Amino acid sequence: MSVVQMVKIVGLGAVALTLSVEWLDWLFCRLWPRKISRGPLKEVFFFPTEVACTERLFTPDSPFPCPCPLPHNVNTSFTRLLSHILSASSSLDLCVFAFTNLDLSRAVLALHTRGIPIRILTDMDYTLITGSQIGAIRRAGICVRCDSGAVHMHHKFAVVDSRRLITGSLNWTLTAIQSNKENILVTEEPDLVLPFITEFKRLWDVNDPARRHLPSIAEKTASLVL
Amino acid sequence: MSVVQMVKIVGLGAVALTLSVEWLDWLFCRLWPRKISRGPLKEVFFFPTEVACTERLFTPDSPFPCPCPLPHNVNTSFTRLLSHILSASSSLDLCVFAFTNLDLSRAVLALHTRGIPIRILTDMDYTLITGSQIGAIRRAGICVRCDSGAVHMHHKFAVVDSRRLITGSLNWTLTAIQSNKENILVTEEPDLVLPFITEFKRLWDVNDPARRHLPSIAEKTASLVL
Repeated sequence: MSVVQMVKIVGLGAVALTLSVEWLDWLFCRLWPRKISRGPLKEVFFFPTEVACTERLFTPDSPFPCPCPLPHNVNTSFTRLLSHILSASSSLDLCVFAFTNLDLSRAVLALHTRGIPIRILTDMDYTLITGSQIGAIRRAGICVRCDSGAVHMHHKFAVVDSRRLITGSLNWTLTAIQSNKENILVTEEPDLVLPFITEFKRLWDVNDPARRHLPSIAEKTASLVL
Repeated sequence: MSVVQMVKIVGLGAVALTLSVEWLDWLFCRLWPRKISRGPLKEVFFFPTEVACTERLFTPDSPFPCPCPLPHNVNTSFTRLLSHILSASSSLDLCVFAFTNLDLSRAVLALHTRGIPIRILTDMDYTLITGSQIGAIRRAGICVRCDSGAVHMHHKFAVVDSRRLITGSLNWTLTAIQSNKENILVTEEPDLVLPFITEFKRLWDVNDPARRHLPSIAEKTASLVL
């Protein structure tokens, strides 16, 4: 077989393969329009969630089964949320109105122990509520900034590894998780994640305590004149 | 030129075209990774928003300019949110914790006047707050169901025409829109929209007042026995 013939056969084969793949893709989409997940990660969870043991998420290598009376090895909205937080390998940026949940606090502290950079932005008034975890998190050495404006910093979102967005109606409290009707949306769709990264950076800079207390040039000039 | 030669040329041409399109696609993605929007609608808005006149959204065909002192023809997070609500052409399903905003109430009433089916699910306790629009909406004849559980129905999402999801931290209140730090995410991504449609249907059915007060077969049997 000559080289020219081989090139022609390979060319026609490539066309046939391309057309077959396109046709199969079209066929699958028609047959199972919703079952095939496409593109970046997209998940939705609803709450309240069934109460289940979360120990295996924190100590996956432990040879001993957890002795607690809660159901084990159960996948719930909350275990999925915890898994997404614990999956962080390079950073966690959290912007949350109320933070009292012990498991989520443990997850944040576990990431800190692993050396993962964490930034937490929260509402100043809500750091004072009963059970707030912000004090414990600060004492562990995690960088926390508070929005002390007269209105609420009402966001409830997190960005994991600068690419996975977790957002919704859910505050990081026990009531929200176990009682309220709430939702959480998790996505790696860049068009959705990037605006949240930009907004986090903006709010983080705005709430820099050093910047807030630095007198402006105008203030300095005024004080010199006076 | 023989038929065989023509088939070969067409085949090779198809391969070249496919590879060129793939290569150009890759090149565009590398050069403008974020500028090219792909797939279904995806938008994110942050609040608080600049205050602007919304009259043109309600009366787009009016020949008279609005005389109010607010800025006109300004695109803000709130005008974008209102536009999405007012774009409904076949249905609006709204699941919201607190609803006091007059412009959003006007948008819902305008859709109702146009004959668009609307279902609103809200938290019973929060229908009693100052400025709640639920009474006015009910009096207009719109179907409203209330979650009267001991805990919060804390969702803040809407589904427009069973295909566009609006969700986030934002309650439909003036404080949320003009003062708080909040977010709204709008998408037509089926993997994200469909779970919300299913959850709305579930909550709508659970909170059917007729169903809630109907005695179960067990209750009926017990009352007969007693």
